[in-house]
Amino acid sequence: MLYYETDRAAISPTMNRPTKPRLKPTAPASAGKEPRGARRRRETRDKLLDAAFQLMAMKGVDGVAINEITETADVGIGSFYNHFESKEAIYSAVLDLVFEEFGDAIDRLVSDVNDPAEVIAISVRHTLLRARREPLWGRFLLREGLSARVLSRGLGVRLLRDIQKGVAKGRFKLVDPLMSFVTFGGGVLGTIAACVEIDGPRAAELARLGLHASDLPERAASNLLFNLGIPPEEAKVIAQRPLPVVHPSPTA
Amino acid sequence: MLYYETDRAAISPTMNRPTKPRLKPTAPASAGKEPRGARRRRETRDKLLDAAFQLMAMKGVDGVAINEITETADVGIGSFYNHFESKEAIYSAVLDLVFEEFGDAIDRLVSDVNDPAEVIAISVRHTLLRARREPLWGRFLLREGLSARVLSRGLGVRLLRDIQKGVAKGRFKLVDPLMSFVTFGGGVLGTIAACVEIDGPRAAELARLGLHASDLPERAASNLLFNLGIPPEEAKVIAQRPLPVVHPSPTA
Repeated sequence: MLYYETDRAAISPTMNRPTKPRLKPTAPASAGKEPRGARRRRETRDKLLDAAFQLMAMKGVDGVAINEITETADVGIGSFYNHFESKEAIYSAVLDLVFEEFGDAIDRLVSDVNDPAEVIAISVRHTLLRARREPLWGRFLLREGLSARVLSRGLGVRLLRDIQKGVAKGRFKLVDPLMSFVTFGGGVLGTIAACVEIDGPRAAELARLGLHASDLPERAASNLLFNLGIPPEEAKVIAQRPLPVVHPSPTA
Repeated sequence: MLYYETDRAAISPTMNRPTKPRLKPTAPASAGKEPRGARRRRETRDKLLDAAFQLMAMKGVDGVAINEITETADVGIGSFYNHFESKEAIYSAVLDLVFEEFGDAIDRLVSDVNDPAEVIAISVRHTLLRARREPLWGRFLLREGLSARVLSRGLGVRLLRDIQKGVAKGRFKLVDPLMSFVTFGGGVLGTIAACVEIDGPRAAELARLGLHASDLPERAASNLLFNLGIPPEEAKVIAQRPLPVVHPSPTA
C-alpha cells in the first residue's frame, strides 16, 4: 500500500503548523528492493494522482481535462491510460487517497475511545486541523462534501455512523438523526470553509466577527457536541481534551 | 429595477413545481414606453447576466472566462465592456440578482412575523423550495455559501441576523451563536445539496437512506428549530404551518 506523507503529518503532533499543501507521495518502506521498472511505474502513477488532486481541488472534477492532468504531471497522455481507464477512475483513486486513508487513520485513532461524544470531537478536530494545515485538502473536501457521494464513501458516511452510534447508546439526544447528519455534516463544511479562509485575505473580516484560527477546531467541536445534546460545560471539557495522535499506518 | 420571473416564481404558490432552471429576465412594467436603444441595451445586459449566471453556477467563477460569457450570450466581447468593467463586476451583479433580490423578497414576506423561530422556518423553507425548483440557483448557492463572502452579503448575513435576533429575544438557546451560525448555515447548504440531488440519478440512494423530496424543507426547518433550542413538538408545528407567499416586487 502506498503511504503518503500528508497522511502521516495530518495525524502527527505537528499538525497545527501549516506545511506544504500538496499530496507528496513517499517511497514505500520496501523501496530498496523495488525493481526499477516497478518504481518508475509507481512514480508516474503518483505524479498523475498528485496532479489530479491539485487540479480537482482548485477547479472541481468537471473543470479538469485528462490532458491537463498529464501536462501538470509532465507525463505523456498515453501513460495516463496505462494507469487509469478514465477521469472517473483517477478521481476515484484520488478520493481513496485523500479521504479513505485519512478516515481509516482517524478510525484507528479512536478505536479504544468508548464515548461517542469524544469520538466525534476527536474526528472533527483532526479534520479541521488538517483543512487549515493543508488548504488544498480542505478545498477538495469542500467540493466533495456537498455531493451525494458523501453518503456512500469518505468522511460523510463515517460522521453518519458516529452520530448513529451515539444515538443508539443514548448519548446524543436527536429527534431526527439523519437530518441532523445532513445539518452537522454541512456545519463541519462551513467550519472547514472558515478554516481554509482564516489565514487568507479575509482573516481580518473573520476576526472582526469573532472567528479566530487559534481555537476554531475546539470551538466547533464543543458547539457540535452541544447541538448533539451534550450539556454545554461537558461539551467544552471534551472538546478541549489533549488531542491523541496516531502512529504511522501499520503498512508503512 | 429589473424584475426577474424566477424571483416571482420563487415566492409564488406554485414553487413546488419544478420549472425552468434559468434566470429569465422579463421586460419591466414600463417596457411599452422604453426607447428602442435603451431596450436593446437592457436586453444585452440581461443576456450577459443570464449567461454569466448559468456558467458560474456550473463551473464556478474562477472557471469562467469573459469570452465564454459573451459567446454563451451571443454578443460581441466589446459589448461586455459597455456593461461591466470586469468579470468581478458581472459576478457581483449576478450575486445581487440571485441572492439579494430573493433575500429582500423573503424579508418583506416575514416583516410582520414576530416569532424568530417562524422567521427562520419560513426563510429556510423558501430557500430549499427554490433550490429544488431551480437546481441551477441551488448550485450557485452551494458554490457561494461556503465562501467568506456570505459573511458580508447575500443570504448568509441574513441567517446570522435572524439567529442573533432569536438569541436576543431569548427564543433560541445557544451557547455560541456565531459558531451556531457557521454550523446551521453549512447545514442549510447540506440540505440544499440534498434538494438539488433529490430529483437526480441519486434519488434512489437518498430515498433508501430516508430522504424524500416531499417533506425535506419542512423536516429541515423542524430539525433546525430543534437545534436552536425549540422543543421538538413545537418545532414541528411551526415548520409545518402554511407557507406565506409574497406579492411581486413593489417596483415590478
